Amino acid sequence: MSDAGQWFAEPPIRGWQQRFQVRERLFVGDSPYQHVEVLDTVPFGRMLTLDGAAQTTEADEHVYHEMLVHVPLFQHPTPRRVLIIGGGDGGTLRRVLQHPVALAVNVEIDELVVRAAREHLPGISAGAFDDPRAQVIIGDGAHFLQETELRFDVILVDSTDPVGAAKALFSADFFRSARRALAPGGLYAMQSGSPLLQSAELAEVARALASVFPSVRTYLASIPAYPGVLWSFTLAARDGALELPPQAELERRLAASGIQTGYYTPEVHRAAFALPAFVAALVRGEPRVAGHPLPGR
Amino acid sequence: MSDAGQWFAEPPIRGWQQRFQVRERLFVGDSPYQHVEVLDTVPFGRMLTLDGAAQTTEADEHVYHEMLVHVPLFQHPTPRRVLIIGGGDGGTLRRVLQHPVALAVNVEIDELVVRAAREHLPGISAGAFDDPRAQVIIGDGAHFLQETELRFDVILVDSTDPVGAAKALFSADFFRSARRALAPGGLYAMQSGSPLLQSAELAEVARALASVFPSVRTYLASIPAYPGVLWSFTLAARDGALELPPQAELERRLAASGIQTGYYTPEVHRAAFALPAFVAALVRGEPRVAGHPLPGR
Repeated sequence: MSDAGQWFAEPPIRGWQQRFQVRERLFVGDSPYQHVEVLDTVPFGRMLTLDGAAQTTEADEHVYHEMLVHVPLFQHPTPRRVLIIGGGDGGTLRRVLQHPVALAVNVEIDELVVRAAREHLPGISAGAFDDPRAQVIIGDGAHFLQETELRFDVILVDSTDPVGAAKALFSADFFRSARRALAPGGLYAMQSGSPLLQSAELAEVARALASVFPSVRTYLASIPAYPGVLWSFTLAARDGALELPPQAELERRLAASGIQTGYYTPEVHRAAFALPAFVAALVRGEPRVAGHPLPGR
Repeated sequence: MSDAGQWFAEPPIRGWQQRFQVRERLFVGDSPYQHVEVLDTVPFGRMLTLDGAAQTTEADEHVYHEMLVHVPLFQHPTPRRVLIIGGGDGGTLRRVLQHPVALAVNVEIDELVVRAAREHLPGISAGAFDDPRAQVIIGDGAHFLQETELRFDVILVDSTDPVGAAKALFSADFFRSARRALAPGGLYAMQSGSPLLQSAELAEVARALASVFPSVRTYLASIPAYPGVLWSFTLAARDGALELPPQAELERRLAASGIQTGYYTPEVHRAAFALPAFVAALVRGEPRVAGHPLPGR
């Protein structure tokens, strides 16, 4: 715990910090990759932390997972084969399997994360690991991508921030491997951090992806338990330009799927790509971003 | 200060709290209405607090003020007379005066807020109080609305949360006075709190406004220094249905104004009304909101 006894807090960033009251620490463990904890928090229920950073909570996991999964999977007209890199809590896999996919391969580097989540956060995966369409591989996602001969309609990267084991997942080399493993018309999506607190990283992701993919677009969601709440994802197309499907088409796809959501809607899908002026400037690579609400970043 | 020495924090809400490192306390005072402070914070520069709640900061005030002002003022085809209730820091008045208005009346109940902000946060009003089109009245906004014979194109309520002096600004009686003081085609907009932490209040505002105005719509923005970051505003039309102007028309209006923004764009204007499923359920008045990321609220 970063704080005295009953609060969990990530280290402050430039004097800004949020914290969560903790009822109980349910799990503590160390893997070759990271320090893993599951905390029972007052505001968000159970929370998974990796190396002291909040990863997901019972109460708000659906916001992150719906926006990471449903935006690319409803953006693609017929996603049949999906690859997930990271996402050891199973929340991404679960949402992918809500779509009529034939195969969902999930490559997670850290078996301890899967184990801790299955035991202490079973509501997040909700049985997804046992779905016959799911193939879970404990291994290095970057390595898997270099070796695989499968071609995917959608590749999702559900990783920690670009430090430690996840660092390789933010490089142009990795993006090239990912593009190679996409089927024609394929889409790539990743969480790309906080536009407030990790603005340099977001700008670098946009730049590196655009050096590999012909069309790249950033989209946003509000994920309460993440620092700064406002969060970014980046979507890239293997071929051609990313055009948002019309509202009516997204509504048709959602209705056909029968999927229930707490955050995602077809309107939210389209609106998530409308970037505040400072975020648009960031991802365009402008060196000085006027109007950034945390000007020191 | 709620915290030991060098941090400012609002009281935690259900075990969730953000805090800001403080360099210096620049101003402390008490008015008949509230306790007023100006703090110099590390992440957001200078911050105004009222009764221990963050109101505005130098670094992110433009997000709140642009979204409170530019959405209704670009929504209205020809706003000439504008009334602001609250907003003693001058940031709302300043953005209103960026539009080609003839008159901006600003009624603020607490003279101490105006004084503290003019002295310690001069960048927020940036001279707006001295504009010949501005008329600043220290007085009770609800009383002003009952008495005034002026008719306004837009009325903006830039208040604290619905407690203390601001409570009267959240009632159906007040909304009736406001509608009476609108010119034909007039628009009413207000900050309506956090959909995460004040969801009952937001639902009540939507309900009470809809009992008075024929058309009411909620919109959202991400305001980093506010608790939960995700923030709501509510817009209401005196007559007829609120239709969002087409993108091209908003672009034309913004270009004609010459206004520079850090957050608002015509795309953001339209996208701000796309509500996450749980927020849409809240403002529709559904008693149990599935997918609320803070389920206890």
